[in-house]
Amino acid sequence: MAGRELTSIRSPRVKSARRLAKRTFRHRERRFLAEGPQAVREALGLPGVLTELFTTAEAESRHAELVTAAERAGVPVLRVSGEVMAELAQTVTPQGLLGVCTFVDVSLADALSPPPTLVTVLAHVRDPGNAGTVLRTADAAGCDAVVFTDASVDPYNGKCVRASAGSLFHVPVVAGTRFETLIGALRECGLTVLAADGAGEHTLDAALDGGLLDRPTAWVFGNEAWGLPEEILRAVDHVVRVPIYGRAESLNLATAAAVCLYASARAQRAGRAVPGAAPADGVSSARPS
Amino acid sequence: MAGRELTSIRSPRVKSARRLAKRTFRHRERRFLAEGPQAVREALGLPGVLTELFTTAEAESRHAELVTAAERAGVPVLRVSGEVMAELAQTVTPQGLLGVCTFVDVSLADALSPPPTLVTVLAHVRDPGNAGTVLRTADAAGCDAVVFTDASVDPYNGKCVRASAGSLFHVPVVAGTRFETLIGALRECGLTVLAADGAGEHTLDAALDGGLLDRPTAWVFGNEAWGLPEEILRAVDHVVRVPIYGRAESLNLATAAAVCLYASARAQRAGRAVPGAAPADGVSSARPS
Repeated sequence: MAGRELTSIRSPRVKSARRLAKRTFRHRERRFLAEGPQAVREALGLPGVLTELFTTAEAESRHAELVTAAERAGVPVLRVSGEVMAELAQTVTPQGLLGVCTFVDVSLADALSPPPTLVTVLAHVRDPGNAGTVLRTADAAGCDAVVFTDASVDPYNGKCVRASAGSLFHVPVVAGTRFETLIGALRECGLTVLAADGAGEHTLDAALDGGLLDRPTAWVFGNEAWGLPEEILRAVDHVVRVPIYGRAESLNLATAAAVCLYASARAQRAGRAVPGAAPADGVSSARPS
Repeated sequence: MAGRELTSIRSPRVKSARRLAKRTFRHRERRFLAEGPQAVREALGLPGVLTELFTTAEAESRHAELVTAAERAGVPVLRVSGEVMAELAQTVTPQGLLGVCTFVDVSLADALSPPPTLVTVLAHVRDPGNAGTVLRTADAAGCDAVVFTDASVDPYNGKCVRASAGSLFHVPVVAGTRFETLIGALRECGLTVLAADGAGEHTLDAALDGGLLDRPTAWVFGNEAWGLPEEILRAVDHVVRVPIYGRAESLNLATAAAVCLYASARAQRAGRAVPGAAPADGVSSARPS
């Protein structure tokens, strides 16, 4: 059971957790905030990750099992008033549970060993909600790792953590990598590097029909407004576009990523190109051998 | 050129536009607000839809061509102060252009004639941002119509209009239909009705391999939190789930819709089942003949 309820936002424990809303403090302390029962449960599933749990009296009774599990794991549980929780939480309607967690990202070397089959790279993704949704989608599609380049949003941003719906705790995440370093490492472990971009040379259908998606792949997704910079488009093996069959100008980032990642997941599981399909606009012959 | 700048939010024209932020007034007047240059341009492309254009002096010079085109089309252009625009617009950083538009939805009979190949149904979708994103995705995937049932959000909600990124003006949209009426009409024009649900009997891959997606299809998507009610799951031809290959609990609504709609678009364009693929868990035999 939690001790006396903290009712002041000036309490040192509260102040210390609250400043983790800022990137500077998160990275200095290598700790971040995870809101809501789902995130807290996932964090608790990884030994040593949940270091402190804030709860309101109401949430403590609603999620009694979870709070007890945290206490059993030796996690300090602090009961706070609704007002303090509202200050700590970054959502309009906080769910009454907020965990302080240690960073969970892994090194690039660890993420690429053993060699992965499907990797998602977020390059220049700035909206944390989008980044979290792509992380969740990458998890669902069975990605072995998700890499946030140094030009992308912080994966520990509260909105990103929430949008990932627990996937930040499931998938090996690499943070803050330079793209130049990354692409070499991806190729070294045998991955074909594809960029998703509306101006791509191949459609996703041509890539599928040509067998390009059967092999181990890293997908690179860019900025929600302007896509990927020239140097990345030039550096990757192929630039692929999701076909637009109607009159929409484009897809949003997370939906485009979903279409690409699931196309790869299916092609890799089928283990072969679609039989009888003609190699489409040079995709087959352009495959690195 | 616009006349004298309106600087008071009490001006009758401003008040009249402003109340269209509320559903009740929108439906009474059958008019809605479309924010930003993209939406205004799309609205202007449909004769008679744009009935009034509010602009700030800055936006008028930035989008001079668009404002001139509106004037040439006989649309009254009203210049307002930045403050008035901030009151009218529903975004934090309004883009200085706001159109008043007549409703663009069509009747169910019109949407289904000639018989469509791919239809999206939003049943019980409550978040306007999600609904707009699905509308945009449906447009991109080449859907012939998007139906909002009476249990879904209003397609003219400002957030939905914005998230649709112009697609509200591209795709025939049907609003406020009862599901019971709808499903009969969909079947009558030869559509197989599929519901996307995490508890689906078939995976999307099995549906693809079994040839189920080759035929004209209506996809039904449900509530972002709890999915679809039993009566809809029982009424449709098949319930299909997007496979989760990793540890994510689920996909979000818009990403799941993107994966389903693009799978259908591709299968329909290929015009055949994947050759040599075995009929998977009874999907083929279960197809209505």
